[in-house]
Amino acid sequence: MSPEVPAGIPALASGAAGQLAGCFISLEGGDGAGKTTQRDLLGRWLTDLGHEVVLTREPGGTDLGRVLREAVLHGDDVDPRTEALLYATDRAHHVHHLVLPALERGAVVVTDRYLDSSVAYQGAARDLGPEEIRGLNLWATRGLLPHLTVLLDLDPAIGAQRRHGTPDRLERESLDFHIRVRHHFLDLAAADPDRFLVVDAAAAPEDVHHAVRDHLRPMLPEPAR
Amino acid sequence: MSPEVPAGIPALASGAAGQLAGCFISLEGGDGAGKTTQRDLLGRWLTDLGHEVVLTREPGGTDLGRVLREAVLHGDDVDPRTEALLYATDRAHHVHHLVLPALERGAVVVTDRYLDSSVAYQGAARDLGPEEIRGLNLWATRGLLPHLTVLLDLDPAIGAQRRHGTPDRLERESLDFHIRVRHHFLDLAAADPDRFLVVDAAAAPEDVHHAVRDHLRPMLPEPAR
Repeated sequence: MSPEVPAGIPALASGAAGQLAGCFISLEGGDGAGKTTQRDLLGRWLTDLGHEVVLTREPGGTDLGRVLREAVLHGDDVDPRTEALLYATDRAHHVHHLVLPALERGAVVVTDRYLDSSVAYQGAARDLGPEEIRGLNLWATRGLLPHLTVLLDLDPAIGAQRRHGTPDRLERESLDFHIRVRHHFLDLAAADPDRFLVVDAAAAPEDVHHAVRDHLRPMLPEPAR
Repeated sequence: MSPEVPAGIPALASGAAGQLAGCFISLEGGDGAGKTTQRDLLGRWLTDLGHEVVLTREPGGTDLGRVLREAVLHGDDVDPRTEALLYATDRAHHVHHLVLPALERGAVVVTDRYLDSSVAYQGAARDLGPEEIRGLNLWATRGLLPHLTVLLDLDPAIGAQRRHGTPDRLERESLDFHIRVRHHFLDLAAADPDRFLVVDAAAAPEDVHHAVRDHLRPMLPEPAR
């Protein structure tokens, strides 16, 4: 499996989202970094600007995805390859049924996690290669990459303190695992600075939000409605 | 996604099953060709010979697989890429949790459908390339191919008459679709004659069974128990 979109596949091509009327934004980072909070703050601001806004998440952004999310986060005995395929399946369905139609309408789509999470979690920190995971997910999504990926960077020890509720399977992994994930996210951002914005997620949520707004403003299309 | 097992993946390599103590047999063909009947006849014969026998199927050979089978066969609105990934996920889990452990113990595993079904159904007859589907599934299974694949070849019009019960999503496809699937199965068999045995499934079930037995006998290991 090649890291590029395989030849012969009707890919949306690199910079794919550029061909679509809308704007695609992903929020990435470890648990407790504030992805959901930032997503919702962005949603309010974008709605006030007059955009159609679609807030979503992975895994579990569609009905099928919620079945898969349950299997992958709370099922027992899921080996790394099955786990990677469950995430890719969820992502394929999410992109095909929710993300692409919204982008074609001209909406702004903000997702809590996307492809980079799989690369960082499954690819770097487990026993599958990041390039394999990237290749699998580019195939699943026909090469759709976000216009902007906001990496909410946080010391995992702080992230763990912020969490609440019953931890899922990934959250129960060791601190060392989460440190490896963090470094892999930072490597991904360094390798693709045009797409990534890295923000210090230890700052106050409003300050993080304003940093994202300032970066995003010139990238936005005219409101579609 | 390459049709070969990608470099760097700890593949079981081609002729993979040769390294394992057991014997891996898949039954392929259209609906109504008698795969389940032949699987069960094989199971009885192999058990009488003293083998540990594992009879299974795809999709749905594991608990997780049954969830995925439901989604893929009876869910609405599943696009071809999501469908291909659902089957690959089911297969990865099936191989990792059931097929490989049984082969390592020295058992004879007989599965009703395996990787070739995905290539024939998703790859040839839908809008994804067969090489992509093959590459995806070799990745999912770490390259595990059966010692023997029995293709129960049947005119789809006869197969349709033999079916009973509520048809699932694939069974509801047109006759033309099933004719394309049949031809693709035959092409797969012609391309890999060492692995495939093609049997005329219009013959009496006992005659089909004896043809399979005669072919399989010299390939069997010593019974493990």
